[in-house]
Amino acid sequence: MNHLDNLITHRPNFVTHLECGMTGEHYPKEQVHGLSKVGKPLLVRYDLKKIAEAVTKEEISLRPPDFWRYREFLPVRHTINIVSLGEVMTPIITLSKVQAGKGTLYVKDEARLPTGSFKARGLCMAISMAKELGITKVAMPTNGNAGAACAAYASRAGIESFIFCPDDTPTINVREIAQQGAKVWLVNGLINDCGKIVAEGKQAKGWFDMSTLKEPYRIEGKKTMGLELAEQFHWQLPDVILYPTGGGTGLIGMWKAFKELQEMGWLKGKLPRMVVVQSSGCAPIVKAWEEGKEHAELWQNAKTIAWGIRVPVAVGDFLMLRAVNESSGFATSVDDEVILEARAECANKEGFLMCPEGAATFAAYQKELKSGRIKSEESVMLFNCAAGTKYELPPVNSRLDRNQPIPYAQL
Amino acid sequence: MNHLDNLITHRPNFVTHLECGMTGEHYPKEQVHGLSKVGKPLLVRYDLKKIAEAVTKEEISLRPPDFWRYREFLPVRHTINIVSLGEVMTPIITLSKVQAGKGTLYVKDEARLPTGSFKARGLCMAISMAKELGITKVAMPTNGNAGAACAAYASRAGIESFIFCPDDTPTINVREIAQQGAKVWLVNGLINDCGKIVAEGKQAKGWFDMSTLKEPYRIEGKKTMGLELAEQFHWQLPDVILYPTGGGTGLIGMWKAFKELQEMGWLKGKLPRMVVVQSSGCAPIVKAWEEGKEHAELWQNAKTIAWGIRVPVAVGDFLMLRAVNESSGFATSVDDEVILEARAECANKEGFLMCPEGAATFAAYQKELKSGRIKSEESVMLFNCAAGTKYELPPVNSRLDRNQPIPYAQL
Repeated sequence: MNHLDNLITHRPNFVTHLECGMTGEHYPKEQVHGLSKVGKPLLVRYDLKKIAEAVTKEEISLRPPDFWRYREFLPVRHTINIVSLGEVMTPIITLSKVQAGKGTLYVKDEARLPTGSFKARGLCMAISMAKELGITKVAMPTNGNAGAACAAYASRAGIESFIFCPDDTPTINVREIAQQGAKVWLVNGLINDCGKIVAEGKQAKGWFDMSTLKEPYRIEGKKTMGLELAEQFHWQLPDVILYPTGGGTGLIGMWKAFKELQEMGWLKGKLPRMVVVQSSGCAPIVKAWEEGKEHAELWQNAKTIAWGIRVPVAVGDFLMLRAVNESSGFATSVDDEVILEARAECANKEGFLMCPEGAATFAAYQKELKSGRIKSEESVMLFNCAAGTKYELPPVNSRLDRNQPIPYAQL
Repeated sequence: MNHLDNLITHRPNFVTHLECGMTGEHYPKEQVHGLSKVGKPLLVRYDLKKIAEAVTKEEISLRPPDFWRYREFLPVRHTINIVSLGEVMTPIITLSKVQAGKGTLYVKDEARLPTGSFKARGLCMAISMAKELGITKVAMPTNGNAGAACAAYASRAGIESFIFCPDDTPTINVREIAQQGAKVWLVNGLINDCGKIVAEGKQAKGWFDMSTLKEPYRIEGKKTMGLELAEQFHWQLPDVILYPTGGGTGLIGMWKAFKELQEMGWLKGKLPRMVVVQSSGCAPIVKAWEEGKEHAELWQNAKTIAWGIRVPVAVGDFLMLRAVNESSGFATSVDDEVILEARAECANKEGFLMCPEGAATFAAYQKELKSGRIKSEESVMLFNCAAGTKYELPPVNSRLDRNQPIPYAQL
């Protein structure tokens, strides 16, 4: 049960090749890749038959409770290249007091990962692969949590990191990034503006671009969210997954996990309906889905207190829309005020404090149960993607003077 | 592997009685207790022989990775009374880049627990027992993290909570407590002044006093830290444990776990040396240990940026000193500036951001390796007791204007 055990055992590798998510064109494994020739994300492909021969569900169940238990499904070849900060299996918590339908309401608490957010999954994998491929400098635009995870894993790997944040990114995130050894700058713009600085700087500085979906391995890290979910539910998934969607890596990664497991015959029952949740202040994927489009337009004047999903344009838009449509899911948005009310209700009644992005999934659950797009008897999984304490919370003003008699009757 | 599995299985109970930590006087189980008649903490006693007959290490290793896997060692009788927010086994991370001796340096990352601190262990257990015993209102003084855990578990259990914080407690903690459904007040004083308000209010308000060690079950929750450590190290513990010590529940609980496991014959090798780490601005236990006393005096003008260990007086002082002496450990203090340097060094080199209390244990490791009280070849375990992002971090001032040419050469 030692969390370190997995790091010293042999690690077989089943990657066959990479392929363009748009055209299907193949690319060789074990080389440095960014986007495909047509500027779209690359997906890692495995010999799933060989994985099924190499490992059983039972064997996995006996391994240490971290995401390296799924090593056959992951791209790292040499154990020595694994950069780990303790990637625990995140717990699933039932929310029976705020459950509004007949089906069970669950939340997967991704705040338990290193640096307090699900970004650790993707960056753990991407930095491990960067190490394996000999990359020494990485750069990234971020709304906060991805940058923190990138900084932490890069410093641990001995890789230099350069991080660019919108200048209204929460202070705690920016400071966390700097303390964890990255060089970090505040930029007067949004995450896509920061992304331009990274893209232009690649040549000048020799940076490797760690932007969402611009390298192939963050998806593979996020895929572990789907693998974990499947195992935790005894390989029979809940009916609906509500996912807070910015760059969409998690949605795409989870759907990739489910399809791989399905192809291997490891899953019982049907796949979940995948639901994109965005803030109404920045909902490009919702708009594209409603209009039946394959790609989303740049969202103008993006504005939401849920920083993690303030992503006006995403290179993986078509992959998100494909997952939603293939799964018979849908895309929906909620207002910021409703997000904050949902956060307060869940914290107050369940003792579970979500981040605003997580609270958006709870608000969407309430909205769509009313609308009928989620049926009362369906089991629903929410995602809390980061620690609630990394965000601003309502102020407290109640004070007592210990030198005066305490007015107990009024407490 | 479903984290929820443990909650629905039968839960045998092996508590025989409680006893006064000072006099050894017995108290009956399954009744509401505070301190003993002589005003000292009560310790829960088990039939360890029956536990050893009821469960094996191998059976435990197959259970879900949360602290309820140790259910035979815990006091909750009825499964229905378990109040859970997902108490994962916390990971152990090696710190090889900042390791200064020949022995391995480890840190156990307690920030992964609900509400982002190790306080969840104690409060999960205390609130579950409060529920089992029919308690409906609890009150507590806190430096922040204990109050947050108390609020969360109490709200989840449907128990009212009343929390009192020093008025310089970090804002995020106070707001977190309120958002999680507690009534919370800021008090112009320290944690012991807040404790007086709770003590006086018990009669007036019918509160149950949840202060550190003033009820018997927080120790049992913290004990899981020691049980986990033993299992993660394959039942052979590291040589030295450095523990950030305020109220001392964790130190006392871990030592209790080790003694119970030793009595059962489950441990190989010798027990670790237990080391109390305090800030030089509030070091009552260090002073008492150096003076060879059984009890510590109230520390005047307590002051440290490590809020969690700003505890000028602790009712369990003699139990801490006993654990230190029985284990051939020692007590040491470090300055606040050194704590902040240690935090920066570890975050920068290892990508691991500690809380100041955790960083104090790393600073103490560096100090005592130099002094020779820790030997170079000894393996050492640090404890990071809370999320680093719940504390103030150094500011970041680097900015870029996206409307100007980016000065890449200077980045």
